[in-house]
Amino acid sequence: MYLIRPEVRNFQPYLPGKPIAEVQRELGLKRVVKLASNENALGASPKAVQSLRKNSQNVFRYPEGAGTILRRALARKLGVRESEVILGAGSDEIIEILGKTFFNREDEIVVSQHAFIRYKMAADLLGAKTIEAPMKNQTHDLQAMFRNVNRRTKALFVANPNNPTGTYVNRQEVELFFSNFKPGQLSPFLIFDEAYYEYSKELAPDYPDLLNYFRKGYPVVVLRTFSKIYGLAGLRVGYGVAPQWVVEAMDRVRPPFNVSSLAQSAAIACLNDRAHIQKSLAIVREGLDYLTQEMRRLGLPTIPSVGNFLMVSVSPLLGKNLFQKLLRKGVIVRAMDEYGFPNHIRVTVGLPQENRFFVHCLKEVL
Amino acid sequence: MYLIRPEVRNFQPYLPGKPIAEVQRELGLKRVVKLASNENALGASPKAVQSLRKNSQNVFRYPEGAGTILRRALARKLGVRESEVILGAGSDEIIEILGKTFFNREDEIVVSQHAFIRYKMAADLLGAKTIEAPMKNQTHDLQAMFRNVNRRTKALFVANPNNPTGTYVNRQEVELFFSNFKPGQLSPFLIFDEAYYEYSKELAPDYPDLLNYFRKGYPVVVLRTFSKIYGLAGLRVGYGVAPQWVVEAMDRVRPPFNVSSLAQSAAIACLNDRAHIQKSLAIVREGLDYLTQEMRRLGLPTIPSVGNFLMVSVSPLLGKNLFQKLLRKGVIVRAMDEYGFPNHIRVTVGLPQENRFFVHCLKEVL
Repeated sequence: MYLIRPEVRNFQPYLPGKPIAEVQRELGLKRVVKLASNENALGASPKAVQSLRKNSQNVFRYPEGAGTILRRALARKLGVRESEVILGAGSDEIIEILGKTFFNREDEIVVSQHAFIRYKMAADLLGAKTIEAPMKNQTHDLQAMFRNVNRRTKALFVANPNNPTGTYVNRQEVELFFSNFKPGQLSPFLIFDEAYYEYSKELAPDYPDLLNYFRKGYPVVVLRTFSKIYGLAGLRVGYGVAPQWVVEAMDRVRPPFNVSSLAQSAAIACLNDRAHIQKSLAIVREGLDYLTQEMRRLGLPTIPSVGNFLMVSVSPLLGKNLFQKLLRKGVIVRAMDEYGFPNHIRVTVGLPQENRFFVHCLKEVL
Repeated sequence: MYLIRPEVRNFQPYLPGKPIAEVQRELGLKRVVKLASNENALGASPKAVQSLRKNSQNVFRYPEGAGTILRRALARKLGVRESEVILGAGSDEIIEILGKTFFNREDEIVVSQHAFIRYKMAADLLGAKTIEAPMKNQTHDLQAMFRNVNRRTKALFVANPNNPTGTYVNRQEVELFFSNFKPGQLSPFLIFDEAYYEYSKELAPDYPDLLNYFRKGYPVVVLRTFSKIYGLAGLRVGYGVAPQWVVEAMDRVRPPFNVSSLAQSAAIACLNDRAHIQKSLAIVREGLDYLTQEMRRLGLPTIPSVGNFLMVSVSPLLGKNLFQKLLRKGVIVRAMDEYGFPNHIRVTVGLPQENRFFVHCLKEVL
């Protein structure tokens, strides 16, 4: 134990959603529905699947380390320069690369209460300190976050929308937040984690456009992913948009082949598959309505969400007890105690029949 | 610049071998042969390719984070416990995870001169110091490495065989080396990087069995990969065998989904594809003989190799000049100045016709 770095000695292995096969095996169940990891219930874009099949013969070659073609395609789509785009094995890898590149022992980062655990882990890894600002109405309170900025602050992390609450900061709040900073200033980094961007942009009319601030020269880093609406969670590919000097610095620390060749080509193939995106959005919009309504009937409060998931209060029951009971019925959701919500579960929006099965089982166990 | 961690400020982005498509595009060449990254010229195991096609529809799910099935298959094959196996996105990720878990600022690691650059980078990342022991006959000198061990030494890294020299430490040298340590001692970690294990075991009758020392309780970590003989370089999957407490510690620091779902299933599919391994070995054995002979005819000394690559001295020419000239002919090799060999090139053993094309072009440019 004394041999382990003190910085990571208290790390706990991340607890992912349970895989379907494991639940089937352990509980001897045939029908298991997984609504636990905010995956796209419709699956991957068919264009991505086609590309995987076509390229599977080429996996003996190392990936193109610079990811040039994908970065160029993203830059074109986003209206930024190729040199302002970095790829990661999921956007979480970019969080860690940011830390490894920039976080010193004497630095601080500011996060929100109930935010994604991996921001703090990136800081812990390098011995930096994490300051947690309170939420307001289960939403990031940007002004409260700003009040914790001092000369040691290296970065602020805003999950927008936040997982697991599904809440977001809107255009007006963001505009006010940016009035605290100046274009051209180099730090602190204002990191907006937009893993659910494609959903939120549709579901929230006042969802802010952070690339706008990026283009004005604020020290903005925007993180997005192919794991959610694009349906490539299993392939590990995400991206960040950041000032060129930040990308260049991170590129020295980035593992040289961090995004697999199949992930790169699948991402390129599906980047502009509008049909799949539209279908996926429709499923989620409908599913959120359905689930919210059904929860209301059951007397279970929900938090309005602009992601493909929903937080449900099961108070006074414990989320982890309900999780266990649902599991035995064949529905995998997530208990939220590790995020500081002992009386909530989080349910990913599934296909209509999956949502109905969840509601059916929930009624049985309540 | 002052915002970047001092530990990584001098990092240079890793320079991978040039991709074929890039060379074709840049130089307007049709036939381009890549002998630059020690990939398996025969390609991936057909069983792996089949598995990729079969599983491509499932990429919308997150990978099984613990990698249970692959770790179990590896444990069975190697005669170790599942809890003694860790998976990485290539074995290089495991090198970095080792560093993030164990290397403190006041620690030292010992490496050999002319060794893989990423051992030092893992130490640099955490502010640990790298001590470089000299080589003897272009081979790791284990006794010289041991002479640099002191109470601050956290790990010794032995690349066996070493890339780029292709040389190895044999059974006798390893036995002598281990007489310096005791079974049951916890550190320093004795890390044997066996990326070319499957080749060396066949090509060198006295190639040592490190798992043997592992089983006796020495603090051994063995690193292997699916990137070389298994032909899965593009998928990023490797593994390490280490004492259970070491695996448990690294598991806290390991990114939760570090090995993609397709990489896991492809690795499982090809792990026991003996036919493909045998064919790949035959190609390399034959290719090494052919290339060594042809270089001798050209008066170019080679270093006997037990990997799928060969170091060729082109002295008094500069390796990087010859690299450029060969590139313009359509052959990608690697100049070795970054490894401290300014007058060498490294050539990966290709298919027979690829090897012949290399020799043909080499004759033209000399």
